[in-house]
Amino acid sequence: MSAIPEEFLSTQAQVDEQAIQPFPNSRKIHVAGSRPDIRVPMREITLSDTHTSQGREKNPPLTVYDTSGPYTDPEAKIDIRQGLSELRRNWIEERADTEILSDLSSQYGRQRNADSKLDSLRFAHLRPPRRAKAGHNVSQMHYARQGIITPEMEFIAIRENQRLEQYREQLAQHHPGQSFGAHLPSRLTPEFVRSEVARGRAIIPANINHTELEPMIIGRNFLVKINANIGNSAVTSSIAEEVDKMTWAIRWGADTVMDLSTGKNIHETREWIVRNSPVPIGTVPIYQALEKVGGKAEELTWEIFRDTLIEQAEQGVDYFTIHAGVRLAYVPLTAKRLTGIVSRGGSIMAKWCLAHHTESFLYTHFEEICEIMKAYDVSFSLGDGLRPGSLADANDAAQFAELETLGELTEIAWKHDVQTMIEGPGHVPMHLIKENMDKQLACCGEAPFYTLGPLTTDIAPGYDHITSGIGAAMIGWYGTAMLCYVTPKEHLGLPNKNDVKEGIITYKIAAHAADLAKGHPSAQIRDNAMSKARFEFRWEDQFNIGLDPDQAREYHDETLPKDSAKVAHFCSMCGPQFCSMKISQDVREYAKQKGLKHHTALEQGMAEKAQEFREKGAEIYHET
Amino acid sequence: MSAIPEEFLSTQAQVDEQAIQPFPNSRKIHVAGSRPDIRVPMREITLSDTHTSQGREKNPPLTVYDTSGPYTDPEAKIDIRQGLSELRRNWIEERADTEILSDLSSQYGRQRNADSKLDSLRFAHLRPPRRAKAGHNVSQMHYARQGIITPEMEFIAIRENQRLEQYREQLAQHHPGQSFGAHLPSRLTPEFVRSEVARGRAIIPANINHTELEPMIIGRNFLVKINANIGNSAVTSSIAEEVDKMTWAIRWGADTVMDLSTGKNIHETREWIVRNSPVPIGTVPIYQALEKVGGKAEELTWEIFRDTLIEQAEQGVDYFTIHAGVRLAYVPLTAKRLTGIVSRGGSIMAKWCLAHHTESFLYTHFEEICEIMKAYDVSFSLGDGLRPGSLADANDAAQFAELETLGELTEIAWKHDVQTMIEGPGHVPMHLIKENMDKQLACCGEAPFYTLGPLTTDIAPGYDHITSGIGAAMIGWYGTAMLCYVTPKEHLGLPNKNDVKEGIITYKIAAHAADLAKGHPSAQIRDNAMSKARFEFRWEDQFNIGLDPDQAREYHDETLPKDSAKVAHFCSMCGPQFCSMKISQDVREYAKQKGLKHHTALEQGMAEKAQEFREKGAEIYHET
Repeated sequence: MSAIPEEFLSTQAQVDEQAIQPFPNSRKIHVAGSRPDIRVPMREITLSDTHTSQGREKNPPLTVYDTSGPYTDPEAKIDIRQGLSELRRNWIEERADTEILSDLSSQYGRQRNADSKLDSLRFAHLRPPRRAKAGHNVSQMHYARQGIITPEMEFIAIRENQRLEQYREQLAQHHPGQSFGAHLPSRLTPEFVRSEVARGRAIIPANINHTELEPMIIGRNFLVKINANIGNSAVTSSIAEEVDKMTWAIRWGADTVMDLSTGKNIHETREWIVRNSPVPIGTVPIYQALEKVGGKAEELTWEIFRDTLIEQAEQGVDYFTIHAGVRLAYVPLTAKRLTGIVSRGGSIMAKWCLAHHTESFLYTHFEEICEIMKAYDVSFSLGDGLRPGSLADANDAAQFAELETLGELTEIAWKHDVQTMIEGPGHVPMHLIKENMDKQLACCGEAPFYTLGPLTTDIAPGYDHITSGIGAAMIGWYGTAMLCYVTPKEHLGLPNKNDVKEGIITYKIAAHAADLAKGHPSAQIRDNAMSKARFEFRWEDQFNIGLDPDQAREYHDETLPKDSAKVAHFCSMCGPQFCSMKISQDVREYAKQKGLKHHTALEQGMAEKAQEFREKGAEIYHET
Repeated sequence: MSAIPEEFLSTQAQVDEQAIQPFPNSRKIHVAGSRPDIRVPMREITLSDTHTSQGREKNPPLTVYDTSGPYTDPEAKIDIRQGLSELRRNWIEERADTEILSDLSSQYGRQRNADSKLDSLRFAHLRPPRRAKAGHNVSQMHYARQGIITPEMEFIAIRENQRLEQYREQLAQHHPGQSFGAHLPSRLTPEFVRSEVARGRAIIPANINHTELEPMIIGRNFLVKINANIGNSAVTSSIAEEVDKMTWAIRWGADTVMDLSTGKNIHETREWIVRNSPVPIGTVPIYQALEKVGGKAEELTWEIFRDTLIEQAEQGVDYFTIHAGVRLAYVPLTAKRLTGIVSRGGSIMAKWCLAHHTESFLYTHFEEICEIMKAYDVSFSLGDGLRPGSLADANDAAQFAELETLGELTEIAWKHDVQTMIEGPGHVPMHLIKENMDKQLACCGEAPFYTLGPLTTDIAPGYDHITSGIGAAMIGWYGTAMLCYVTPKEHLGLPNKNDVKEGIITYKIAAHAADLAKGHPSAQIRDNAMSKARFEFRWEDQFNIGLDPDQAREYHDETLPKDSAKVAHFCSMCGPQFCSMKISQDVREYAKQKGLKHHTALEQGMAEKAQEFREKGAEIYHET
């Protein structure tokens, strides 16, 4: 019997009911690849018919990118105590370059597993870790550079295409976009995925110990992705809450999730998250390393950090944020800043460097870190420890000095065929955003950029999802591959589930606006489907096509709750008497009947139309 | 006794209590001009002291632009049944170019005033209307072109400067910005205001019958402004609700308010709003004209429209949206669109043109409209009736054909010295936004641009404040002078008070982000004050400096409700053990003590610092 009944107990862990509800009018589909075990999940939204004077016209179903994993699949059996099924296991095994270890390699991991006090909250089905065989490199980049197209790459090609071939004819209404040098092929092939990974322009975060993963890609020539941060702190949260935040985050569209826990039971929390996550999990290992030395940064050592990397790599973490660019010499560059160093990892390392007056051990041991990364295929997310924490500090000497070092480290990582992306700011006024992107591309050889926002003003605490959503959309357009979300609680507190959702929807908007502006070939299909539904007063379709059907339906029903209003040819804004969209339909209908193709022909027909209007009493709204 | 107790009764009307609460740690100040009756209201936020090892340092109070009028002035006596005091009356009278009429000039206005059934809801203190004396033009543009600096212009110069002279030394930390040709002088003079109005690059919406107005300016070379739409519809709302929405909107920062009522008692609702509004009120007169003909667009006539213009001008409406650019020949250009015509005014006029197969009466009578405008100083907001209603339709032939006509009409308006701004889209992907701005500047001789959003994607109903906030920030940066807000209810229903606030805060963010990116000399002062408060853990100041102190405080208190947390040197994100900002303070403090000015000197000092850190146990957080 537990003394604290609200405490987390592994035997009683349950999936969040909200996370496993199917989306309205949607079904989970699986698009087949070249082999039976490549089945790429997508969400298909069924749309209602269009009613015209000639009868009904079908609207094709809409396919949307689906990050929610098996949770929204009514046929999947979800038990978070078991974890998800091992989609990638066979792919990894058939490569025959890894081995199962008899025990964890990290001292800390073994210690935690042996601690019986943790039994009640430990994930029950721990698997022995897998590691590259001696002399082998198991990174997707390594395979790519050898010309190998992995099942992961094929999975991604299908996933990114989103059945685009079904929507070809719609693309006439697609704006070509301005891509700033990004290359967005109209049909993605597995070979294109391979070549981008080989080139370092994209990464596939896919630890060999995260077999539950549905592979995804982060790169400028693919759809813009978003990350959601979760994690407990010393002040608040439990394992159950963090697992719930993860399943909630992927439901609304998080492409990756970072577990930034700094509170209790970090090791066990992570195990639960990874075993139940279909999306890549990222961490900042220095956070846990710091907890291991009681929060005293100066007591950090390379050995403790190294053990932490291995501990997390063997759990299946897919990418590590490592602030190896915070060099001793750059710390003084922050002295005149308005807000100094605001990256937690950056300040830990700055403190360490100051205390020892020595170069950062992350920098001096970087090649050894690469050796660990390639033995598990963990990707680098090279942290921007000196990113600005205020508009005043944007694009300063400290920030750009670090960025140049990150470029140097990228070259070293690539020498080891280790996948690498680069983290970016932060707080940047709009007119300085593009400089960040351009410098990152130039310094880091086009390695994917992964930015936090940036916030475009600092004057709106409580609304920093919006201040940063503006910057995120812009930098995504300019070429950032993944956008790290910001919630309304930023600078004020830890996000709850509502905040997580608000942050994600805002960042889905930013990422999608970026895809549209870049001219991604599939981006505008969903917008056009929405616009057509809007023009035709298909209210249910408008709700269901949107990023958040629940919110849209709720808002609509606040003013017009009746079911009949959902087929009404008006909304509460203009009311039933007159609606601007209806007249356009009349003009359209008229042109169609006459088969009018030309501007002049239409104009000639106008006199006739005017007559008809007057005869019919010129009333365009007819109550149904 | 009223049969419907919830009905609006003029004798019982009360101001919304929420609208008259003073902001925390704020006081209303009045900056004096060259004469006693020029007293420009601003809000001053008192900040707490900075604690350093040397003791306390004062932080100067922050001055912020204040749109809330007397409502947030504890010394003002507010009684909405009386209306606001007549700030501008003397200014208008001393110009001696207007006369008080014995009765309303509009037939409809006289009819409403004579209708005893309306007595219970009519504003009690109706004033006789004022009009230009025969042969006079009372527009601010007319005065400006004669070289006259009006009190309104001086008021605006002081208002736009926001006591910038008190913050000169802070401007070293100010990014210069990229203004795309806007000219933002470091100190605004009344003469600059005059010259911009004379040139047509800015407007001062200030009807001579809106004497309660606190003058403001809309132009590319001034602070970016925002507008909030309110108004009832046939489906919902009352007079009391609309007045509440207006006072609520200006509390949070609406620079102008448009009353878009289309429901009952439009005339009386407007009277209540204007008499109680310190900000300019805009309307779309065709909405009311349409109601006068029972919603049948084809029955609209020039005479009915003309009477409506005069009716509203004599009530004190400051600007009229007039869709005079929707010409008959452009209607067919919308036939192939995905969403046709989505402007209500645009579709009304398109319907009229089709029904009569005749050129729009707004276009053919444009010079007569100018005569009315200059007799009351009503400004044009030339409506974009053919703006796109979806991404697919952005920047198409219909939209740009109309824009060219709006340019032609601007020239005519300017010939009459009538102030003019131009409305813009709508729905535009990011990469097509700048083209809108550039074309508007080129077609319309730099007349101020006033855009709705634009929405940068259509896939997020329920979040269109965000989809459009992105576009608004960008187009504001490129040169748009005023941004019309979009609320979360857009496309779904009529906004309530919460939605109004959410829309306004989002648009204040967009406008301010634009000012920052343009390099407006005063913009970054507030950001820097926030960043300094953040760096120094002055939590109360962070809440109070923000756009929404209530929301920020509430979010913070959700995780750390204790009062002690408001002076804590941490937040719930990192917890008490470690905070990234603290180490930067140590570095700063160190540099200050040593008087170190140079990079190299700092670097040399690092060894010493490292020693000191180790000696002190290298713990940077000390519980207070």
